[in-house]
Amino acid sequence: MNAVDLNCDLGESYGAYRMGNDKEILDYVTSANVACGFHAGDPTVMRKTVQLALEKGVRIGAHPGLPDLMGFGRRNMNIAPEEAYDIVVYQIGALNGFLQSEGGSMQHVKPHGALYNMAAQNEALAMAIAEAIYKVNPELILFGLSGSELIRAGEAVGLRTASEVFADRTYQQDGSLTSRMEKYALLENDEDAAAQVIRMVKEGKVLSQQGSDVALRADTICIHGDGAHALAFARHVKNSLELSEITVKSFS
Amino acid sequence: MNAVDLNCDLGESYGAYRMGNDKEILDYVTSANVACGFHAGDPTVMRKTVQLALEKGVRIGAHPGLPDLMGFGRRNMNIAPEEAYDIVVYQIGALNGFLQSEGGSMQHVKPHGALYNMAAQNEALAMAIAEAIYKVNPELILFGLSGSELIRAGEAVGLRTASEVFADRTYQQDGSLTSRMEKYALLENDEDAAAQVIRMVKEGKVLSQQGSDVALRADTICIHGDGAHALAFARHVKNSLELSEITVKSFS
Amino acid sequence: MNAVDLNCDLGESYGAYRMGNDKEILDYVTSANVACGFHAGDPTVMRKTVQLALEKGVRIGAHPGLPDLMGFGRRNMNIAPEEAYDIVVYQIGALNGFLQSEGGSMQHVKPHGALYNMAAQNEALAMAIAEAIYKVNPELILFGLSGSELIRAGEAVGLRTASEVFADRTYQQDGSLTSRMEKYALLENDEDAAAQVIRMVKEGKVLSQQGSDVALRADTICIHGDGAHALAFARHVKNSLELSEITVKSFS
Amino acid sequence: MNAVDLNCDLGESYGAYRMGNDKEILDYVTSANVACGFHAGDPTVMRKTVQLALEKGVRIGAHPGLPDLMGFGRRNMNIAPEEAYDIVVYQIGALNGFLQSEGGSMQHVKPHGALYNMAAQNEALAMAIAEAIYKVNPELILFGLSGSELIRAGEAVGLRTASEVFADRTYQQDGSLTSRMEKYALLENDEDAAAQVIRMVKEGKVLSQQGSDVALRADTICIHGDGAHALAFARHVKNSLELSEITVKSFS
Repeated sequence: MNAVDLNCDLGESYGAYRMGNDKEILDYVTSANVACGFHAGDPTVMRKTVQLALEKGVRIGAHPGLPDLMGFGRRNMNIAPEEAYDIVVYQIGALNGFLQSEGGSMQHVKPHGALYNMAAQNEALAMAIAEAIYKVNPELILFGLSGSELIRAGEAVGLRTASEVFADRTYQQDGSLTSRMEKYALLENDEDAAAQVIRMVKEGKVLSQQGSDVALRADTICIHGDGAHALAFARHVKNSLELSEITVKSFS
Repeated sequence: MNAVDLNCDLGESYGAYRMGNDKEILDYVTSANVACGFHAGDPTVMRKTVQLALEKGVRIGAHPGLPDLMGFGRRNMNIAPEEAYDIVVYQIGALNGFLQSEGGSMQHVKPHGALYNMAAQNEALAMAIAEAIYKVNPELILFGLSGSELIRAGEAVGLRTASEVFADRTYQQDGSLTSRMEKYALLENDEDAAAQVIRMVKEGKVLSQQGSDVALRADTICIHGDGAHALAFARHVKNSLELSEITVKSFS
Repeated sequence: MNAVDLNCDLGESYGAYRMGNDKEILDYVTSANVACGFHAGDPTVMRKTVQLALEKGVRIGAHPGLPDLMGFGRRNMNIAPEEAYDIVVYQIGALNGFLQSEGGSMQHVKPHGALYNMAAQNEALAMAIAEAIYKVNPELILFGLSGSELIRAGEAVGLRTASEVFADRTYQQDGSLTSRMEKYALLENDEDAAAQVIRMVKEGKVLSQQGSDVALRADTICIHGDGAHALAFARHVKNSLELSEITVKSFS
Repeated sequence: MNAVDLNCDLGESYGAYRMGNDKEILDYVTSANVACGFHAGDPTVMRKTVQLALEKGVRIGAHPGLPDLMGFGRRNMNIAPEEAYDIVVYQIGALNGFLQSEGGSMQHVKPHGALYNMAAQNEALAMAIAEAIYKVNPELILFGLSGSELIRAGEAVGLRTASEVFADRTYQQDGSLTSRMEKYALLENDEDAAAQVIRMVKEGKVLSQQGSDVALRADTICIHGDGAHALAFARHVKNSLELSEITVKSFS
């Protein structure tokens, strides 16, 4: 029987600034990626997000980002692999503080934004991140873009990995995501997104923008938690998966 | 037989900015308070400081501060007890990341600067900090100003505490430190500092600025690690303690 | 004939975080207090806010705050008067950069949040802020709480001042605002708020929570720009003032 | 008669962190590039640096950097040209606040670190920076790497430019600086550095690492202000220039 995890970025509020529908989206996802204070999130937001996820029984992961709050961690920064290692250790540790104080445990780590994208292509960065995670706790699962350097690095250091796919993004024939700068980067229609996801999970294939099928592994699906349509989309994807007899569950 | 711990604030460099003689001072102290990135320290500095302390066999503690790098955590901020709780959990966790990745364990937590001073007098803040530490790990030792609200809070929540005294600061008859704004806040002479420390450890007393003896408990002595004279001072204090048959050792 | 200025805090978004209804509220106010990057705002937000205000013909002022983005500048910080002076010069200058590049001029300066509140009561801080403004440009108008130390300091250094009142806050018999910690700190009803404002402008009086009238000067009225009700409230206050034959206009 | 400007980066301290020999180096240079709070510097440091430079009669420029204090503005960040424009306007404005309050005027703008290096090669970024400077004040002089896109952009928008050369760096045959990652990136010998500078000023040529002469314009020479040897080096370069009958002076 097929199974897949649904994950979402959470805890992205900061101080007086609110972002996302954290409480509501937790009804649909099985893994929560919690921002750790560098690109988003602050200590109080992190505690409350951990409490919410624990209440809802959603598994928790660290979502470490670049030290760039102004850019929301989305601007590439030319950090050394050593710096990547250190900021990942730091942020996993910080979130782990709240898991210890609230009585939970961490399931996974998923780098955020530009750190995720750079690590998908840069082997040295990917290895530094994978080693950081392994050194803190070798039981943690590394979430990375399906087919990326980050997934290879995780396997190389001995981590369990989860290959991530995106419900509402389109793919290129090399398996990469269509850049958000391009037209047709997003699937606008919920039905199309659900169909794409179901095929990725069941067949391990996605139709690329070039018209050819691409093989890819789909262990976990990324759902976005902000925006007016986020909850309806999450509900639709989850229902569609279940109607196709795909079990939606975390990795524990 | 008498024994006392010698502690020092370490890891206060940040990015391109250097502060302190971390490597050298580790030859004299038995406990290192490592800055956690809010008032000082960055992830790379934290890792290197943890590595140094582990190499030298010095016990490691978290040194959480206020989110005020510009003010080095020395400016009082009117944070709510809940915020104090959260920033302490976060910072302990962050440092713990490096202890896990480097194969060490945390001995203690000592709040920094204004957070330490506010918690010495403000019961609600002291309780929030003590609870944060206990919730993350009840085995951690809380370092606080001898006779302060912070020590009382630590005992109230069930933490082991270490009452801290200062080698080179003078005391008021209520047991508080003479403000640095006042004359005679500092003992200028190394001999005087050593004699004061020895008496605090052996007799549990210190001569106040008002001329009367004050009772106080001395489990750990704070030594400063920056400034040109820091190493000579640390050496003198340590030697004087040992010549007086006081064992200098950590709490483990 | 009576006249009064209506001011609102604007430009409080930061990076990916949105706050306020800046574009819409500019249809109702005559002076905009633009956040300068310390408690809120970033350079891009500042430029866009200046552009919007210039388009709508609303006069622009700097809204300098404490260096505390996480606390939105609302937490008292024990900064020295010299530090207050410096952060005010810096932030006025930064906003002035955008006024120069966009072809506008600055009308006023209104400290934000905790800086505003501390300066209302602390003479040394108030003097430092007033001097900072005067030294950068003696033509700037200082907005401060009516009856506060900040207004006195502005007059003492030779600045033109504007005494600020609040439409939706209640007053104590000493002329201070009822703390937001207290019940009845806010006027819940738009009619009551409008009536209070009209009386403050026309008669220079407000009914305190203790039941007695308090004399106060009302040169400018603070309107809040965020929250679902903000626009309706702003419209109601402005219309009520005009129906009472009070001209709503800026100071230029 | 030949003339050249000597410039140095100043005001790079931050809070409790000290960097550079600002007071002493001001005896040798004619233009000071003052950090503006993003990669280094804080408002108090900026005021004191402006005061020092004014006392010594050294001309003042803004030294805007990337928003990356942890990386000292030396890590490339993938900012949009619009963001570069905005952070430059902001930082020029902020420094201008202190020039207005202290009674001075700004001579020039020199981007810092990674912003300087990226703008040397990226035309869109260079144009955005040049336009930002021009829009704030078209009289400002843009300092950029000799032969770079930044100099071309400055000329294109109508700014006066100053082509910068480095006393202690070696050059490639395309006129670029040898990367600091490479061997022989630095001239280790003061005599060699002085000879290189004199030839650049008098002949408009430098001997590249590949052995061929490269033509380049030298309007201003960058001297480093930190490090134990900085003052002796500055003195040697200045004396050597004057002994070669090159006048060392700013652009005003």
